[in-house]
Parts: sequence; structure tokens; C-alpha cells
Amino acid sequence: MSLIVQKFGGSSVADAERVMNVARIVTDTFKQGNDVVVVVSAQGDTTDDLIAKAEEINPNASKREKDMLLAAGEQISISLLAMAIEKLGYHATSLLGWQAGFQTSSAHTSARIKRVDPSRIRAAIDRNNIVVVAGFQGLSRFGDVTTLGRGGSDTSAVAIAAAMHADLCQIYTDVEGVYTADPRKVPEAKKLKEISYDEMLELATLGAQVLNNRSVEMAKKYNIELEVLSSLTKAPGTIVKEKPKMEKMLISGVAKDTDVTRISVMGVPNVPGLAFKMFSKLSAKGINVDIILQSIGHDGLKDISFTVAKSRGQEAVDCLQDYMENLGAKEVLYDDKVAKISIVGAGMESHAGVAAKMFEALYDAQINIQMISTSEIKVSVLIDEKDADKAVKAIHDKFFD
Amino acid sequence: MSLIVQKFGGSSVADAERVMNVARIVTDTFKQGNDVVVVVSAQGDTTDDLIAKAEEINPNASKREKDMLLAAGEQISISLLAMAIEKLGYHATSLLGWQAGFQTSSAHTSARIKRVDPSRIRAAIDRNNIVVVAGFQGLSRFGDVTTLGRGGSDTSAVAIAAAMHADLCQIYTDVEGVYTADPRKVPEAKKLKEISYDEMLELATLGAQVLNNRSVEMAKKYNIELEVLSSLTKAPGTIVKEKPKMEKMLISGVAKDTDVTRISVMGVPNVPGLAFKMFSKLSAKGINVDIILQSIGHDGLKDISFTVAKSRGQEAVDCLQDYMENLGAKEVLYDDKVAKISIVGAGMESHAGVAAKMFEALYDAQINIQMISTSEIKVSVLIDEKDADKAVKAIHDKFFD
Repeated sequence: MSLIVQKFGGSSVADAERVMNVARIVTDTFKQGNDVVVVVSAQGDTTDDLIAKAEEINPNASKREKDMLLAAGEQISISLLAMAIEKLGYHATSLLGWQAGFQTSSAHTSARIKRVDPSRIRAAIDRNNIVVVAGFQGLSRFGDVTTLGRGGSDTSAVAIAAAMHADLCQIYTDVEGVYTADPRKVPEAKKLKEISYDEMLELATLGAQVLNNRSVEMAKKYNIELEVLSSLTKAPGTIVKEKPKMEKMLISGVAKDTDVTRISVMGVPNVPGLAFKMFSKLSAKGINVDIILQSIGHDGLKDISFTVAKSRGQEAVDCLQDYMENLGAKEVLYDDKVAKISIVGAGMESHAGVAAKMFEALYDAQINIQMISTSEIKVSVLIDEKDADKAVKAIHDKFFD
Repeated sequence: MSLIVQKFGGSSVADAERVMNVARIVTDTFKQGNDVVVVVSAQGDTTDDLIAKAEEINPNASKREKDMLLAAGEQISISLLAMAIEKLGYHATSLLGWQAGFQTSSAHTSARIKRVDPSRIRAAIDRNNIVVVAGFQGLSRFGDVTTLGRGGSDTSAVAIAAAMHADLCQIYTDVEGVYTADPRKVPEAKKLKEISYDEMLELATLGAQVLNNRSVEMAKKYNIELEVLSSLTKAPGTIVKEKPKMEKMLISGVAKDTDVTRISVMGVPNVPGLAFKMFSKLSAKGINVDIILQSIGHDGLKDISFTVAKSRGQEAVDCLQDYMENLGAKEVLYDDKVAKISIVGAGMESHAGVAAKMFEALYDAQINIQMISTSEIKVSVLIDEKDADKAVKAIHDKFFD
């Protein structure tokens, strides 16, 4: 008998019919002799509807009250799923984040899980119940309801799997697994049978949006085997684990990320320490910088370009504008019509020429590269946003055809 | 400085505009130097919407899961009201039933409050916060979310007032107070300045539907002064207290209750103990019997009639049908097209002829009386449902013109 944690996102429980579908998946797993803990997100558009209600009343509401509001979303979905499981003739117990033992930091709207005490989950399993846990939420040490931020339910599921030493953590989504590229854009994209945590992390960070990266980091840390699969088809998904069976592929995928803005600070004096000061300023505001490119100085001046998430772009520009005088820089340029295209693959480490092959594909497609960044297992380039889909297809064809 | 508990029902917080209206009432009270604890119900139709979602999935869901589902309703309204209060520039803290210290029995969907530990409410007040508490909900000793059943938010408000020794508990509704009759049906109805707990209890039980009777019972027990008033007008409401100032009125109101079914068991042998057995059967099923009327026996047989709530009518009939043989009775008749009309007033005790005056009013209006029941401070009659409004008006005219 295994302990399996299954996570279903908001679209998987969007209406009564889909809730019943999830109940069937869950009870099928239970019938096969497994203990099952299910983690669910809020139904479909519930979170957006609740945010709209709040915005209408007070767009600057405290984060504590936002968390209190949003946490009602999963409360609705867990009780409905428990009812659906009961309907199929099984015992179910729904548990809110705090009841399921989720202790978090008190950073409202983006709390970190500090500890999961699964004793209530365990007790319900011992009573032969399928346990349905509210993802995305927990309780701070002040006894306040907290939420984990975007993608938090994935992290909730992995945290339970880690705390309970589960045998498998299945993440059900609306795609059948992890693909070599976005299958909606690249019809030739292939589903991967297995992938390593590190490759999955690079893909998640790079905008493949299959799995939340905090959840993959946690799975790697506690060595939890993940499976990404679809709640709508019966097809096997993609297993994420430490040492996947090698499929003889140089790269495991091509990812596109359009949530990116390029900022360039022009005419910075070519003296030591200015880059440090500049990025300290941004860091102090919690703005994460991704690719950084510094031109070779000439006439005692240099240009520093970097990328940040679109949502923080304007803030980053404002922050630097205020600091221009101290930097002695000339001007700040800003371009949010850009996209980051990345290839990821553990095979890269031992094969030369992977980056060159990617650049060749882009050259063949007449796509201009603005910035380049590389790590052991990935190569990223920044290009014009309008070329993004064409670039993904060109690179995919080059590597996978 | 006083401590005031204010309770707002679902219609008072139905949309953003009304939530802001409630926030203004609450902050006005706070500005006058009072500590304020606000108790709110779920918004408008939220509870009905949630019930519909559950019915679609599983009409026979466990009560535990129903409570988990419904409790999400107040979670939404408390956080929205807290946001609205913040918008007006004040500090607010929303608290769920369990956070506010509500410990209840584990009778899901109709739990009883066992204890309120107001320490978190007190701590938030000490930090100069207006505290917004989810009505209708609590936590069982098993750590499960419970709800108090219909009208539970009134009871939540009074329970907090009792636990914190509040100076006043205001129940805001969509009427301006307690009237001598339903003002929508009887335009001449007068608003009462004050009324005793006992009169209010009779009125609540009798279908005046202004205040939940559990809340009035609790207010009486702990001597909490209640005020019933409107959230939409600024008019003073009706004070409910132990010894109201006497307004020289024989009766304080005329109430109509159409949630009633008359059941008659015909041809019961005229031997001792059968009525006891019959009503024991109903009591064992938790069916409350109201008016009971027994005919004088003839030919060794008698008829027993009684009333129950409409929702339990069919169940009561089925229960008795099964028991007909043991009773030796002939048949069970059933009529749910009836209404109970009642007059209530502490003045009745010391004045003869009040019942006669009521009967005269009905006779003048040519309305047939089916059953009669009296207590120290009330007289109730059962009549045909179609005559109900006419009867209320006729009685009101007789006593108040």
C-alpha cells in the first residue's frame, strides 16, 4: 500500500461535472489500495472573482484581509470535492490549511511554509478517509490565515508529501505532462517520460508554467517523486525525479517567457562598485534581476542592461531614475516588448556546441538576439516579443527533428 | 467609553455599496469613542448559492462538509467589511468563528454555542482595531468547523456581548424595529420603543422574524440590552430589555406564522396514555409540536389535532401512519394551508377580555377559527392561510385604532 498525494488546480474543479471527475480519479486511486491525500485549489475563476470584489471596495486593503478573503476559495472547493467523494460511496474529510497543520511565515499573500504537522491528516487516513486539503493556505504564528502566493497549491502538495514521506506526488493539470516545447504552439512537441529536478526548475523559472518552481525546489530537497499529468485524459504523464532514465536528447525543452522587461542604464562611469550599488538598490525593493549584460567601457562610460519581471518594470525604472545622479548615469531605457527563449537540458554539460546550434536556428529564422545568458544546463536569449513563437518553433525543429 | 456589539445580516452587506454603508455606521460608532465588535452574516444570496452548488454535486452530503462549505460565506463578508473599514481610515481585524473563540457542540448545521473565549477580540480592541467577527460559525471540540443554523448570527452577536459584558448589542436588519404588526401588511402598524424579552420571545417564536429566538433567550439569560434597528435609515429602533418602560398598551404586537401544518389523528380510542405515546414518537424524531387540541370523546373515540412546522409535516404524518395500528386510530388528516395568528403582550396578564376582543375582531371579519392556544402573555389561533393577512389587519385595527 502506497501513500499518494494528488493535487488538482482550479480548472480541474471548475464546475460540478469536473469536481465529480476529480472524485472519480481520487477514488480509483483509493480503490487500488492506496492511502490518498488530495490537495485542491479554488474553483476556476473564484480567486479572480474574490479579488474583483475586494478591488471594488478597497484596492489598498491590507494583505492580512486579502488572505482572509482568498482563503475562502479553497474552503469551497475542498468541501465540494469531499461531498463528491461521499457521493461515490467513500468517506472523505476536508481540512483547511490550518487544520492540515500548515504553519507559515506571516508574510501575507506570499507566506512561506515553515512546518507541516500532518497529525490530523494521518488520523483521518487511519479512519479510512480520503483527505481533501485546501492548498495555497496556512496559519501564521499569530493565528492569522495566510496564503502562499501564485502556484502555492503545488507547494502545499509537495510539502504534505515531504512531511508524510509519500511515495508519489501527482500534480494534475490541463496538459498531459512536460513537453519539449509548448504543444499549443509547436505541434511537433514531444511529451517527456522523465526529467530531472534541475531541468524542471530551469523550465519552471523560464516560463514553461507547468509546475511552480518553489514546489520543484521542495521536491528536490526532500527527494519527492513528482508526476505531472492531465486530469482529463488517462495518459501517463511526466515523472520528475533526481536521476531520470536518460533519453538520448541533448536538451529536454524549449521555453518561452514573455513576462520580462529589458532595462538599460546608459552612460554609467566606468569605475568599480557602481553595478553593485545599482543592483543593491533594486534588491532592497525586492526586485529580482534576471539576465545582466554589461557593455565594454569606452570613453570612460559603459551601459548596463538587465531584465526584470514585467510587473516590476516600472518600479525598477523609477527606482533607478531617482538614483541617476548618484550613479552619474545619463539615461534609463525601457523595453517591455521582449521575450526570453531558453533551452534546457542536463545533456548540455557534456556536449559542446549546443548554444551554437541554438544561435544557428535563430540566425536561419532571421531573428536578432539582444542578450544572452548561459548556465550549466540552459541557454537563454532575449529577443523581440513578436518573434517569440517563431523562435521557439525554429529551435525546436533544429533540435528535435 | 462603551463596548458596543453590532450585528448586520446578509442583506445589509449584499454588495460593495452596502458594505461601505455598514462600514460608515461602524466607524461612526467608533468615532464617538466606543469600542466596536461587528458580527456579520454571509453576503445576500451567498449561502443559497453555496447550497445550490452542494445540491448539484451531492444532495446527501455529510453535515460536516456542509458546514465547511457554508462557513466560507461569512469569511468573504468579514474580510470585505474589514477592507471597507480600512478604506475609511481605521484599523480593522476580521476573525473567523474559531479565531473569535466560539466553541460549539459538534451537532453540525445546528451547533450550540458552549463557550466564547473573547481573548483575541479583546487583544485586537486593545490595539485600537474595530473587530469584525464571522457570525453563524464556530469550532467543535474535534477541531471541525460548525454552523449554528438559521438566525445563528444574531446568537453569535449576543454571545459575544455576554462574554465581553458589552453595554449594548445592536441588531441591524431591514426593518426599523419591532412593530405592532408586519408594517408591509398593516400600514397602521406602530414601532415599539421598548419591549420585554418575554414578549420578544413570543413574537420571535410566532413568526415575526425580527430576531432569532435563541438570541433573545441568551440576551434574557445574561441581561444584555438589545436594540433592533435598520441599517438603511438613521431612525432609533426598538430596545429589548428586562423591564421596558410601560407604554399603556394591552398587547405589543400581532404576528402571523404560515410555516405551520395542522395534523389530525381521527378516531383514537378514548383510553389513557395514547396521546403520550403519540407525542413521544414525534419527539423521538425531533419534531416539535406546537398547538395541541383534543376533542371531547364520544362513542369511545376522540380526535387529536396538533400543529408542526411545514418542513416536518410530511415526516410527522409518515411517523404516525406507521403507528396507526398501535394507536388503534382510524386515519391521519393533513392540512398545510393554515396560518397561526398571535397577539402578544405582557399587559394581558392583568387585563381580562383580551382573548375575547381578538375573537370578536375575527368574527367581525368573518374568519373561522380552527384551533386556539393561550399562554400568560399570548393568544394564538389557527385559521385558513388565505385569511391570514385579513386577520392580522382586523386584529390590529381592533387593538390599536
